[in-house]
Amino acid sequence: MATGDRKKIIIDTDPGIDDAMAIFVALKSPEVDVIGLTTIYGNVYTTLATRNALHLLEVAGRTDIPVAEGTHKTILNGTKLRVADFVHGKDGLGNQNFPPPNGKPIEQSAPEFIVEQAKLHPGEITVVALGAMTNIALAVQLDPEFSKNVGQIVLLGGSFAVNGNVNPASEANIFGDPEAADIVFTCGADIIAVGLNVTHQVVMTADDMDELASSNGKLAQYLCKILGLYYSYHLDAYEIKGVYLHDPTTIIAAFLPSLFTYTEGVVRVQTDGITRGLTLLYNNQKRFEEETEWSDKPSVKVAVTVDAPAVLKLIMDRLMES
Amino acid sequence: MATGDRKKIIIDTDPGIDDAMAIFVALKSPEVDVIGLTTIYGNVYTTLATRNALHLLEVAGRTDIPVAEGTHKTILNGTKLRVADFVHGKDGLGNQNFPPPNGKPIEQSAPEFIVEQAKLHPGEITVVALGAMTNIALAVQLDPEFSKNVGQIVLLGGSFAVNGNVNPASEANIFGDPEAADIVFTCGADIIAVGLNVTHQVVMTADDMDELASSNGKLAQYLCKILGLYYSYHLDAYEIKGVYLHDPTTIIAAFLPSLFTYTEGVVRVQTDGITRGLTLLYNNQKRFEEETEWSDKPSVKVAVTVDAPAVLKLIMDRLMES
Repeated sequence: MATGDRKKIIIDTDPGIDDAMAIFVALKSPEVDVIGLTTIYGNVYTTLATRNALHLLEVAGRTDIPVAEGTHKTILNGTKLRVADFVHGKDGLGNQNFPPPNGKPIEQSAPEFIVEQAKLHPGEITVVALGAMTNIALAVQLDPEFSKNVGQIVLLGGSFAVNGNVNPASEANIFGDPEAADIVFTCGADIIAVGLNVTHQVVMTADDMDELASSNGKLAQYLCKILGLYYSYHLDAYEIKGVYLHDPTTIIAAFLPSLFTYTEGVVRVQTDGITRGLTLLYNNQKRFEEETEWSDKPSVKVAVTVDAPAVLKLIMDRLMES
Repeated sequence: MATGDRKKIIIDTDPGIDDAMAIFVALKSPEVDVIGLTTIYGNVYTTLATRNALHLLEVAGRTDIPVAEGTHKTILNGTKLRVADFVHGKDGLGNQNFPPPNGKPIEQSAPEFIVEQAKLHPGEITVVALGAMTNIALAVQLDPEFSKNVGQIVLLGGSFAVNGNVNPASEANIFGDPEAADIVFTCGADIIAVGLNVTHQVVMTADDMDELASSNGKLAQYLCKILGLYYSYHLDAYEIKGVYLHDPTTIIAAFLPSLFTYTEGVVRVQTDGITRGLTLLYNNQKRFEEETEWSDKPSVKVAVTVDAPAVLKLIMDRLMES
């Protein structure tokens, strides 16, 4: 595939074990051209996310790709950050104590980089958001044209009609910055949301991991080292012998959207009370008597089904290439 | 069926067109012994609900059944009441201008009546709650033993994993008094919740209404008079040629629970923000890292599927008996 035919994507990421897998899948996929990584808190704090993003590009031999560091704070700067080190390890990569990277992030901040790239290539950039939505919301605020300039935002976030993973109401990426997520969902860009209702269907089993370990692929070997902790977490929290492929599944949605089906509607994020971080989709099936908080807001696409075997096979195949 | 074998039920109601149908179905069902109606706001204000409850018992020739008037205010007494007169008519019964009833409510308030009956017949009373949950929450507060004394609470309320009917987040009975609903859901009683996810599956079509009209049954004839407005509302709001049988379906769940399937878990009600009135069920499938607002609360049963043709047939059959 010629470079010009590839989909240009920026991955906004908080690596994170499944972020590492998602980044590797993207780098191994001829359909996409990863033009930058931007970093955000979530699985780890932003500083560590930046370090890990640089490290992962070095592991993959792709230090040509720029890393732009994102914000260290929620958009309202009033809420305590929550990081999921109990899922991904203190270092975000399975407690493997990798050496520090040689590279450095670029001078531009993540929101500045995202805004500039969208302006340089109007309608062509796909932003894949794998952490809290703060950088994307800042991009929306930075440039009134951003929502129009960006080709598509494919975000991992929300738990549509199913329980969350931080608490029964809320999924971690949205819970990380609900106010930012509400800005993104209602910004008017072309958005695909991939939530837990979909990603919990894509499970890499212990057998799949054995297969991955049997491969000669360098990236597969690397991932097998860091997956242990993530596996233990799933066994403990969900009593399953496998891991959910949240981030890799979202990457696939960015360049093979036909492996999913979607519903369309307005999504708002609850920002107060016991369901803070809840994503609620209005499906347009009822005409309400009164104006609601969903009225006259732009619609987004929300993934509802996934061809899970096909997505898993694609992820495995790409990772096992040497 | 001997009276002693019948299930004793109290219907807490805000008539309401589908409440009228539910009350008639209950009165025509040999499986149940309606020992009282209690009134609440929702489709109409409580004063009118009381008037209509007395009127409906007179239409059915069952003035032996006591009516206890319920509260006129939400449990926090701080929120404006919302009544759905645009669904049921200014009079709550399809704008038919029926004459005022001859009867009067008993001296006891609805919460007092409910508490006393549960104490008199421990474990035997089913309270079917068809309006806002305030009377039931007041009963919980009035008597610390009520949750244990009551046999079961079968409530029409919530919209589990589907949109609400007041707004995308909230169903009308819960929206009417979210704080009261949260008290009820977490009170520890044996509870079945029947939400919009189930009641929207039970539709009386225009053809069914023609069949009802062809019957000689007095109650069927009465209902056909009042159903017109309710039908128009559904055509306008949902673009369907039929009406949802919310209240009658809930009555059936009270005495033929096997026509439904259930999931179990803790239900909490969101009381703030844009999703005020949202019901959120925690299905126990994940062990969360932190304590949540769902932790260590009692579980309830939430209806998830319904044998809709069987429920509809039962309702039709009972109403068409002369």
